[in-house]
Amino acid sequence: MSKVLIVKGHFLYTRTAEKFTVHKDSFLVAVDGQVEGIYPVLPERFKEKHVQDYGNRLIIPGFVDLHLHAAQFLQCGIGMTKQLLDWLEDYTFDLEKEFRDEDFAKSAYSCFARKLLASGTLRACVFASSSTTGTELLFEILKNTGIGAYVGKVNMDRNAPACITETTEDSLKGTIYLIEKYQNERLVKPIITPRFAPTCSDELLKGLGDIALRYNVPVQSHLSENIDEVQWVQRLFTSAEHYSDVYFKNNLFGQTKTLMAHAIYLSEDEKILALENGPVLVHCPDSNLNVRSGIMPVREYLNRGIKVGLGSDIAGGHKIGLNEAMVRAVQMSKLINLDNDELAPLTLAEVFYMGTKAGGSFFERTGSFEKGYMFDALVVEDEPMVAEKYSVEDRLEKFIYTGDDRNILARYVEGVRLEQ
Amino acid sequence: MSKVLIVKGHFLYTRTAEKFTVHKDSFLVAVDGQVEGIYPVLPERFKEKHVQDYGNRLIIPGFVDLHLHAAQFLQCGIGMTKQLLDWLEDYTFDLEKEFRDEDFAKSAYSCFARKLLASGTLRACVFASSSTTGTELLFEILKNTGIGAYVGKVNMDRNAPACITETTEDSLKGTIYLIEKYQNERLVKPIITPRFAPTCSDELLKGLGDIALRYNVPVQSHLSENIDEVQWVQRLFTSAEHYSDVYFKNNLFGQTKTLMAHAIYLSEDEKILALENGPVLVHCPDSNLNVRSGIMPVREYLNRGIKVGLGSDIAGGHKIGLNEAMVRAVQMSKLINLDNDELAPLTLAEVFYMGTKAGGSFFERTGSFEKGYMFDALVVEDEPMVAEKYSVEDRLEKFIYTGDDRNILARYVEGVRLEQ
Repeated sequence: MSKVLIVKGHFLYTRTAEKFTVHKDSFLVAVDGQVEGIYPVLPERFKEKHVQDYGNRLIIPGFVDLHLHAAQFLQCGIGMTKQLLDWLEDYTFDLEKEFRDEDFAKSAYSCFARKLLASGTLRACVFASSSTTGTELLFEILKNTGIGAYVGKVNMDRNAPACITETTEDSLKGTIYLIEKYQNERLVKPIITPRFAPTCSDELLKGLGDIALRYNVPVQSHLSENIDEVQWVQRLFTSAEHYSDVYFKNNLFGQTKTLMAHAIYLSEDEKILALENGPVLVHCPDSNLNVRSGIMPVREYLNRGIKVGLGSDIAGGHKIGLNEAMVRAVQMSKLINLDNDELAPLTLAEVFYMGTKAGGSFFERTGSFEKGYMFDALVVEDEPMVAEKYSVEDRLEKFIYTGDDRNILARYVEGVRLEQ
Repeated sequence: MSKVLIVKGHFLYTRTAEKFTVHKDSFLVAVDGQVEGIYPVLPERFKEKHVQDYGNRLIIPGFVDLHLHAAQFLQCGIGMTKQLLDWLEDYTFDLEKEFRDEDFAKSAYSCFARKLLASGTLRACVFASSSTTGTELLFEILKNTGIGAYVGKVNMDRNAPACITETTEDSLKGTIYLIEKYQNERLVKPIITPRFAPTCSDELLKGLGDIALRYNVPVQSHLSENIDEVQWVQRLFTSAEHYSDVYFKNNLFGQTKTLMAHAIYLSEDEKILALENGPVLVHCPDSNLNVRSGIMPVREYLNRGIKVGLGSDIAGGHKIGLNEAMVRAVQMSKLINLDNDELAPLTLAEVFYMGTKAGGSFFERTGSFEKGYMFDALVVEDEPMVAEKYSVEDRLEKFIYTGDDRNILARYVEGVRLEQ
C-alpha cells in the first residue's frame, strides 16, 4: 500500500528560473515520497487522511549544495588571508591528513553532517578526503542523517604532501571499492572525485574515466578556479588543448554526469565544450572571494545555456547554509552589472532555482514541488512581526538573506521527516 | 569605594590596525568599568577578589556599529532587487511611517535592540525615524539594554513622502527637544541626523549645524553612496562645491565629531576635506552590494590617513552582526586587489580594528583593552573540537567568519555584565 503524506502551508518553489510559483494556504500531497499535487482545497479522496498543518509557515524545496569538502568543515573561516594554492599547502592538506584516524574522522564528519542537515541542505555533492576508510565513514554518517548525497573519495597521486597522496593503484582501487559497496544505495551514492588536474597523473585520470564509464558513476572536480592554477595545468598537461580538455579527453567531463566547481576563467572553446557536453558548473561565490579567485560570469553562462548550480565550497567558502551562497551570488552579479549593464543582476528566483531545481536535477526530480518530484522540503518559521506584515515572497527573501538553521522548523527528504 | 572586576581567559584586541595583541590565559582587571591592566599572574593586591573565570574562551572588545537604521530592522533582507533611490521609495519610507504609532514602534524597536545586543554590538550609532516620539521610545529601549549608543531623530523636510516629512521648524524643534532631554545620559546620547542632503532644505541643514555647534552634539549622515544620488545633490545644491561641501558649509562635516556613511564616490577635493576635517567615513559593504552602490576604496582612504569605521547599515545591509561586515570588507578588498595589486587586501586585524577601536574612538576610550579603556567585551565560546585544535588567533578568525549570537556567552559594557 502506498504511503500518503499531506502537508499544509504556503508553498514556494521555482519551476523555472524566471519566477517563483506560489501556492498560499494549500495542501501538498506526496505519495511514496513523490509530489502528487498541490491543492487549494484537499481533494475528496484524501479527506480521511491526516494533514500535517504548518499554518502560516513557508514550505520550500530543500537546498542542494553541489560542491563542498566535508573534511575541511572544521577549518571554515580559518586561513582566509591566503590565496588558493598557499591555502591548500598551509592549512587544508594538514587537516585532511587527520582523516586517516578513524576517531577523528568520525567526530569531524558527524559534526559536519549535523550542521549540513541543520542548515537545510538536503542533497549534497561532497568531497571527503583521500582516505578510503575515512570516506567509508562519511558514507555511513551521511546515511544516518537521511539526506541525499554523492560522496567522493578524493583522488590524488602527485603534487600534494605524501601523507595524503596515494599511489595511482591504491587511489583507483579505493575508488572501485567504494563504488561497489555503495552504488546501489538509495540516498547516499558514490561519485568519482579527482581533486583537480594538478594532483592527478595522466594514468590516474585515465583510470578514473574508465571507472566512470564502466560503472556509470558521476564525476566531480575543480576547474579553472584561479589564474595561477590554470597556468600550472597548462604546464603540466602540455598535450591538452585547455584545462577542460584534460578532463574531457579522460572521459571526466560530461561523459557521465559531471560537476565542475568554479569554472571562472574559461576560454571560448571551453565554454562551447561545457555547453555541448553538459557538465554542471558550480558557482561558489564566497570561496571565490575568500581565496581571491575572482567572480564566475554567471549571467554570461546562463545566457549561453550552460547549466549552473550553487556550492558552499566549505571550507574555501565559510558558510555552510546554501542561502548564503544564493545571497553572495546575487551580490556578485550586482557588482558585475555595475561594470557592464548588459549583464543583468541575478534575481532571487534565479539563485533559488540554482540552489534547488538546477542543483536538484543532478539527483533527478528533486528541488521542485512539481508533480513527480521527490518531496524534499524545508518548513520555514519566521518572526511573528515579519510573518504578519509581509507577503510570503518577501518573507522568503528575508529568510534567504537573514535566516539560519533556527528558522527551519522541519526537514523532509522523499517525504520522510528527518530527525535532527 | 571603587568596583573591581577580574575576568580570566584569552584576550585578543587590536591596539593598532597592524596586528592583534594577544594575552593567553590572563587576568584582566577593570576598576569602575575601566581596564586597569592585563596580567599573566594576578597581582597580589587583587588576590582576595573574585575571579570570573572563562577558561578556554576568547574575550574580545564588543563590536561598534557606526551606521544602522533601527526603524528598518524588520525589513532586513527584503526588497533587495532595488537600487538605493527606488528601494527607499518602494520599501523603506513605507515602513518608517509606521513608527508614528507608539505600539508598533515599541515592538519593532524592542526586537531590534534585542538582536543588536545578542549579536555583540555594544556601541552603535543609530538612525531612528523622523518621528520625535518614536525616537524617544528608541532612546528608552536602548537605555534598557545597557549598551552604548548615539541615537538620531531623522531630519527630512523635503523629497520624501509627506507622511514622514516634517516642516523645517518641527524637524528642528524635535531635534532640540531630544538633545535637551538626553544630552546628559551616560550611555545613550543624541546625535544630529540629517537623513542625507537631498531630503533636507538649506534652511534645515543650516539649523542643524547651528544646533550641533550650540549643544556640541555629534552628527551623522549619508554621503556619496551612489552615482545617481551624487548627481541629484549637484542639481539640488548648485552653490556647493561638491557633496561634502553641502554638509561642510553648514557645520555638519567635522565641526563637531561626525560620521559619514558610504562615501564611495568622493572627488579628490572631498578626500582632502575628509582628511583635514576628520569625519569618520563608515564602510557598509553589504549595503553597498545590496543596493548596487559600489565598493568604498577603503585601502586608499587608509593610506591617506582618513578614518574609516564599519557599519551594518541595517537594512540596506541585511546582517546585524558586525562580524559579517568585517568579512565582507575583507572580501571586497580582495576583489579590488585582483584589479589593482597595489591596493593590498584588508587583513583581519584591520577590519577588526575598524569594527572595535576605530569605531570605538567615536565613543571615546572604547573598543580596546588598553589601560584606561572601558571594559566593553564579548566572551566567545566555540565548538570544543575547534577550541582544542586551533590557536586562539585562528579561533577568533573562525568566530568572525562563521559565528553568530549563539557563540557569545557574555557581554560587558563598562564592566557591567548585560542581561539578554
